[in-house]
Amino acid sequence: MRPSGRTPEQPRDIRLTRNYTRHAEGSVLVEFGDTKVICTASVENKVPPFLRGEGKGWVTAEYGMLPRSTGSRMGREAARGKQGGRTVEIQRLIGRSLRAAVDMEALGEHTITIDCDVIQADGGTRTAAITGGCVALVDALNHLVATKRLKKSPLKQMVAAVSVGIYKGTPVVDLDYLEDSEAETDMNVIMTDQGGFIEIQGTAEAAPFVQDELNSMLALAKQGIEKLFVLQKDALEG
Amino acid sequence: MRPSGRTPEQPRDIRLTRNYTRHAEGSVLVEFGDTKVICTASVENKVPPFLRGEGKGWVTAEYGMLPRSTGSRMGREAARGKQGGRTVEIQRLIGRSLRAAVDMEALGEHTITIDCDVIQADGGTRTAAITGGCVALVDALNHLVATKRLKKSPLKQMVAAVSVGIYKGTPVVDLDYLEDSEAETDMNVIMTDQGGFIEIQGTAEAAPFVQDELNSMLALAKQGIEKLFVLQKDALEG
Amino acid sequence: MRPSGRTPEQPRDIRLTRNYTRHAEGSVLVEFGDTKVICTASVENKVPPFLRGEGKGWVTAEYGMLPRSTGSRMGREAARGKQGGRTVEIQRLIGRSLRAAVDMEALGEHTITIDCDVIQADGGTRTAAITGGCVALVDALNHLVATKRLKKSPLKQMVAAVSVGIYKGTPVVDLDYLEDSEAETDMNVIMTDQGGFIEIQGTAEAAPFVQDELNSMLALAKQGIEKLFVLQKDALEG
Amino acid sequence: MRPSGRTPEQPRDIRLTRNYTRHAEGSVLVEFGDTKVICTASVENKVPPFLRGEGKGWVTAEYGMLPRSTGSRMGREAARGKQGGRTVEIQRLIGRSLRAAVDMEALGEHTITIDCDVIQADGGTRTAAITGGCVALVDALNHLVATKRLKKSPLKQMVAAVSVGIYKGTPVVDLDYLEDSEAETDMNVIMTDQGGFIEIQGTAEAAPFVQDELNSMLALAKQGIEKLFVLQKDALEG
Amino acid sequence: MRPSGRTPEQPRDIRLTRNYTRHAEGSVLVEFGDTKVICTASVENKVPPFLRGEGKGWVTAEYGMLPRSTGSRMGREAARGKQGGRTVEIQRLIGRSLRAAVDMEALGEHTITIDCDVIQADGGTRTAAITGGCVALVDALNHLVATKRLKKSPLKQMVAAVSVGIYKGTPVVDLDYLEDSEAETDMNVIMTDQGGFIEIQGTAEAAPFVQDELNSMLALAKQGIEKLFVLQKDALEG
Amino acid sequence: MRPSGRTPEQPRDIRLTRNYTRHAEGSVLVEFGDTKVICTASVENKVPPFLRGEGKGWVTAEYGMLPRSTGSRMGREAARGKQGGRTVEIQRLIGRSLRAAVDMEALGEHTITIDCDVIQADGGTRTAAITGGCVALVDALNHLVATKRLKKSPLKQMVAAVSVGIYKGTPVVDLDYLEDSEAETDMNVIMTDQGGFIEIQGTAEAAPFVQDELNSMLALAKQGIEKLFVLQKDALEG
Repeated sequence: MRPSGRTPEQPRDIRLTRNYTRHAEGSVLVEFGDTKVICTASVENKVPPFLRGEGKGWVTAEYGMLPRSTGSRMGREAARGKQGGRTVEIQRLIGRSLRAAVDMEALGEHTITIDCDVIQADGGTRTAAITGGCVALVDALNHLVATKRLKKSPLKQMVAAVSVGIYKGTPVVDLDYLEDSEAETDMNVIMTDQGGFIEIQGTAEAAPFVQDELNSMLALAKQGIEKLFVLQKDALEG
Repeated sequence: MRPSGRTPEQPRDIRLTRNYTRHAEGSVLVEFGDTKVICTASVENKVPPFLRGEGKGWVTAEYGMLPRSTGSRMGREAARGKQGGRTVEIQRLIGRSLRAAVDMEALGEHTITIDCDVIQADGGTRTAAITGGCVALVDALNHLVATKRLKKSPLKQMVAAVSVGIYKGTPVVDLDYLEDSEAETDMNVIMTDQGGFIEIQGTAEAAPFVQDELNSMLALAKQGIEKLFVLQKDALEG
Repeated sequence: MRPSGRTPEQPRDIRLTRNYTRHAEGSVLVEFGDTKVICTASVENKVPPFLRGEGKGWVTAEYGMLPRSTGSRMGREAARGKQGGRTVEIQRLIGRSLRAAVDMEALGEHTITIDCDVIQADGGTRTAAITGGCVALVDALNHLVATKRLKKSPLKQMVAAVSVGIYKGTPVVDLDYLEDSEAETDMNVIMTDQGGFIEIQGTAEAAPFVQDELNSMLALAKQGIEKLFVLQKDALEG
Repeated sequence: MRPSGRTPEQPRDIRLTRNYTRHAEGSVLVEFGDTKVICTASVENKVPPFLRGEGKGWVTAEYGMLPRSTGSRMGREAARGKQGGRTVEIQRLIGRSLRAAVDMEALGEHTITIDCDVIQADGGTRTAAITGGCVALVDALNHLVATKRLKKSPLKQMVAAVSVGIYKGTPVVDLDYLEDSEAETDMNVIMTDQGGFIEIQGTAEAAPFVQDELNSMLALAKQGIEKLFVLQKDALEG
Repeated sequence: MRPSGRTPEQPRDIRLTRNYTRHAEGSVLVEFGDTKVICTASVENKVPPFLRGEGKGWVTAEYGMLPRSTGSRMGREAARGKQGGRTVEIQRLIGRSLRAAVDMEALGEHTITIDCDVIQADGGTRTAAITGGCVALVDALNHLVATKRLKKSPLKQMVAAVSVGIYKGTPVVDLDYLEDSEAETDMNVIMTDQGGFIEIQGTAEAAPFVQDELNSMLALAKQGIEKLFVLQKDALEG
Repeated sequence: MRPSGRTPEQPRDIRLTRNYTRHAEGSVLVEFGDTKVICTASVENKVPPFLRGEGKGWVTAEYGMLPRSTGSRMGREAARGKQGGRTVEIQRLIGRSLRAAVDMEALGEHTITIDCDVIQADGGTRTAAITGGCVALVDALNHLVATKRLKKSPLKQMVAAVSVGIYKGTPVVDLDYLEDSEAETDMNVIMTDQGGFIEIQGTAEAAPFVQDELNSMLALAKQGIEKLFVLQKDALEG
C-alpha cells in the first residue's frame, strides 16, 4: 500500500500551532506529517501601486524553502539572486487562494503578506502553506479589529488545500514525498469551507488521467479538506 | 451573449501556419482569433546537467510577450532583468504539457526548446502556445529523423489545449480577452489526442465554482480540443 | 559577385506592412529580404525623469531578437537576466536616429517607445529597424493628432538607414548575413529625407579602409536610402 | 538596569536543540532568549574551485532572516534579487569563525555549509548562529565518521560567540534587541574552548570607547562564553 | 624581520594629496606605501529615505578596486553584476567609521558619499581609505561652509585607521600584502584623534590570539594612528 | 571661438605616462587635457570559449568611470548591479579598435584585457582610452616577448583615436566637455598609423551634417591623430 501505511483516504497527522513566532500579526506552524511550514501574516497600511486610491485591500504571499529543508541542500535563492520557477509558481498559487478568503472592499487599504517558509519538506508544502496560511490570515484580520483599524473582520470564508494523486493505480490523499515522487498524477485542490472550488491544478506526471480518476481524486480531496476545516476551526477556537 | 457573438461551444477561428520562419527545425504561427503566437522548436545535441549520461532527452519551453502585444505597453522583461511570475508559470506549464508528447528514451540525448513568443494577445496565449508548440515539436522530431539522427519519431501522442470558463453564468470555450477579464472562473485544459488529461488548471477568479460547473467546463473543453486535433492533423498533412 | 546575385547597388526586396499588429499606435512589419522586424510605436502621456517639467517629449527604442530568429538558438535575454552588449548598442543607435525625426518641443510631454523585435534575421536588422521604426513613429504621431492630443504632427523629417560595406573588394549596399559575416568593412548610414547624415558608423572588420572606399560606400548608401524614402512614402500613403 | 531585569554578567536563557530538522547531517535550533536560529550543516563531497586538487576541505556559512522574524516585515532577499550588506557581512563572519574549529587537511575534500536561518530575532543573531552552528558542525563531522568517510573527526576545538556592549554606561553581556538598539558600544567576541580569540568586532555606535571599557567587555565576554561551552558540551553529550 | 625591512612599529611612507581630482567637493589620493586609493567626497542636498524629515544628515561610503589594482586581474564587479562580499564588508566599515567624525544634526539634510577606489593594492586598503576618506570628508564639510550652506563645519573629530597583526610571532603595524597574506592575526583599528576607539576588527587567520597579543597590537595601533593624525593635520593645513 | 582658447585644429595637451601602476603587464595614465584615464593591459593564458582550440588570441576591453570623475556623482555601476548602455557601447568600441592592432594568430592562446578607468572626465574619454590603451597593449605584448612566451611581438600597427565635431558651425578637433555638450555633430575617428580607418562614428546631435562637413572633420581628425602617433612613439621609446 502506501509507504507510510496510511489508507488511501487518510491524511497525515496535521497540526496547526498558532502564535508560533512573536512579531507577526499572525504566525502559525503548520505540520502535515513531516512537512513543516512557518506561515506568518504581516499587515501594512498601504496597498500596491495598481490599487492605490481604490479603497480596497490586498492579500499576497511569498514562499521559500530553507536550503536544507530537503534531502539534499538546495542553493539559497537569495544567494543565487533570483527565485526559481517552482517558487514563483507556488507563491502565486498561495496568494490567489488566500485572496478568496477575504472581502477586499471591507479590508480597506491594507496589505496582508503571507510568508510561507518551509523548514522541513516531505511533500505537500503548498497545500500545507495554504491551510496554515489561512489561519495566520484570520489572526491578522482579527488583529486589525482588535487594534480598531477595522470594525469587523473582512473574512468571507475559510480556505484549505490538500493534494490528491494516483499512486500505483490507486487514488490517495495528502501524498508524502515518497508517494509524490512516484505518483502517476498529482493534483492540488483548494476549496472553501462552503464547498466551492478555488483552484484545481492536476498534472499527469507519468500517464494522462481520465475523467473517472479525476472524479475519484476530487471526492477524496473534498473528504480530506473537510477534516482540515475542522482542524482550522479547532485551532482558531483553541 | 459572448462579446464576439460566438456560441458557448464555439472556439475562435484557429489557424496553424507551419514553416513560419526560416531557421528553426520547427516554426509555427498559431492564431486563436486575434491571439497570435510564434512557436519555434530548436534542437540541440545535448541535455541539461541533471540528465547527463542517462541516455534520455528533454523538452522544455520558454514564453515571452512582445512589449506591445497587449493593449498597453508592458516593460520588456530583458530590460527589467527578470522574467515575471506569470511568464515563469506559463512556460513551466507549456514545458510540462509538451513533454507528455514525447518518449524521452527514444529521443535520446537531444534537447528540444519550444519558444513561444506572443506577437499579439487577445486571451488564451498559453493554450495557443501549447497547441501550436506541439506542431512545431512534431516538425522538429521529424527533422531529427530526416537528418538521420533518429530512426523514427519519438512522438507518443499529440497534445492540445483550450481554455474554458464561466462567463456571465454560462460555461464557454476559448475565452478571448474581453471574456477572460470578466470570467468568474477560468480553466485551462490540456489533453492528448487519445482522450487523457495532461493538466487541468482551474481558478475561481470571482466566485468559487462547484462540481457541476467543473463538469460542464470539462465537457466543453473536450469538445473544443477535438477540433484542435483535427486542425493539427490537417496542418501536419497539409 | 554577391551570393544573392544582386548587383552592388541593388538593395534586397523591401516591404513595409503597416497596422501589422492591432494594439500599438504604430505597428509595422519591415522586411529587408529575409530580415523581418516588427516595429511598434507606443505612446505614453509622460516623460522620463530627466525631462520632467520641461514641456518636451521623448523618443526611445528597444531592440530584441526572438531566440530562434537566427541560425542557431540564442539564449533568451529575459531568461539570462540582462540585455547583451550588442542589443544595448543597437537600441541606443535606433533611439538616437529616430529622435532626429521629431520636434521634441512640439511633441510635448509624451514618450514614444519604438520596440523593434526581430522575428527572422538575415543581416541588416538595425537598418531595417530604423527604416520601419520611422514609419511606425509617423503613425503614432498621427494618432496623437487624430486623438486631439496634438494639433499637428511634430514630424520634422523622415529618417531611414541602410548598410554598406566592402565585400570581396567591392563596395555593396544592404548586406545580407552571408556578405556581412565576410565583409572587410561594414558601415551603417542613417540619413534624413532632406539629405543630411544623422549617424555614420563604419567599422573595419578585416582591414582598415581608406577615404576612397569611404566615399564609395557613402555614395552607395545615399542612393540606397533614396529608394527607402520612396518606399516609406508609398507605405504611408497606401 | 537592563530592560530584561538581568544582571550585567547574566546571559539570556540559552537552549541548543539537536536534530531539530530531519534531513541535514547536523541540525540545531539555538535559542538565546527570544532569538531563535535554525542552524543546519550540510556535507558535500566536493570543494570550491580555488581548493580543487589540494586535498583540503572547506567550511562556509550562509545566513538569512525570515521576512517576519523581526518587528516589522523586511523584504525577502530572494525576491529582491540580492543579499543585503548586513547579511553578507554576518555570513562571512560565521564562516570565518567556524573554519577555526576544523582541521581542513583532516577534513579532506568535503565542503560543509552551515545555514543559519533566523526564525525570530531579538538581538545577537550572529553570536547565536556561531554558537549553534558549531554544534551542527560537530554533528556533521561525526556523521562523516559514522558513514566511514573519515576515520576520526577533524574537529580541532569548539567555537562559541557572545555579544557584549556598553549599555547606559555599564558593560553587559548578551544584549537583546532593546539593549542593542541603544548601546553606546557593541562588540561580538568569538573564542575557542581553549581560551583564544578567533575574532573581535567592536563598534562604537554612539560614542568612542576606551581601553578600560574594552577590557571590561572582554572580561564579560570570556565569562559568558565559558557558559556557552558548557551548554554545547551538554547538548553534544545529551 | 619584515619583508620591507621596516621595524615592527614603523608604518610605511604615507602621503595624503588633496585636490587630486577636480570635480569632487573633497578629493584625496592616499598612499600607504604602494597602496594607493582615490577618496572623493560628494555632497548631495538630500538624505536617504529612512532619514527624511528628521533634519539630520548622513555619511556613507562605497569601495571598489580597479580590476588590475592587484597582482592578478579580478573580474570587474560592474560586469559581474554585483559587489562581492569583501567589498560590501569593507564599505560598510568605512561608512560606520567616518560617520563617527560628523555631528549629523549639525550637518542637516545633506548626504556625503565617500568613494574609495583602489588604483593599486598592497595591503591595508581599508585603513588607507578611512584615513584618506576622512580628509576628503573634512574638505567637503568645509565646502558646505564656504558655499554658505552651513554656518560652521559639523566635524566632531578626526578619524584614522591602521592595521596591526602578528607576523611570524611579532606584533607589527601597517602590514603590506606580503605580511598580510602570512600573518597569524590581522586587526584593523579605527580611532579618533581624541584617543577613543571607533571600531576594532581582529581576526585570527592561522591561530587564535590571546589577550597579551591583543594588548600589544592595540598599543602598536595607537602609536601608529597618532602619526596619521599628524599627517592628516599637515595635509589639511598644507 | 573655443571655450579653451584653442584653435580649431589644436588638440589639448596630451600626456602618456607608462608604468603608472605596478601590477599590470601594461599600465598607462593617459591625459587629454583634464580627461584622465588609467589604461591597464592584463595578460591571461587562456581564451574565451568561442576561440578555444583555434590557436588564436583575443583582445578585449572594459571601461568604467569612477563615480565622481564627473561634475555630479554618478551611481556606481557595481552597486546598481549592471553596466549602463553608454559603458557597454564604449567598451565594445575600444575592444574592436584595439583588436585591429594585433595579429591574433601570432598572439596565440592569450587574452589581453584592456581596462580603461576614467578618474577624471572632461570629454573624449573613449578616444583617450583607445590612444592610451594601445600603448598599454604594446607594453603587454612586449612583456610576452620578454617572458619568452612569444618570440616576437604580434603588433601589426598602432591605433589611436580623436574626436572631431562641429562646434558653433566650425569643425574642431578633440572636443572638451564644454564643447561636446553643445556640439552640433560629434564624431570619433579611430585610425592606424598606416593611415587607414578602423572605425568612424559620427552622430548628429543637433542638426544633420552634410558631406562637406564630414570631409572637413575627417581632415581635422587625420591631422590630429598624426600627433597622437608621435606621442605614442615618444612614450614607448621614452
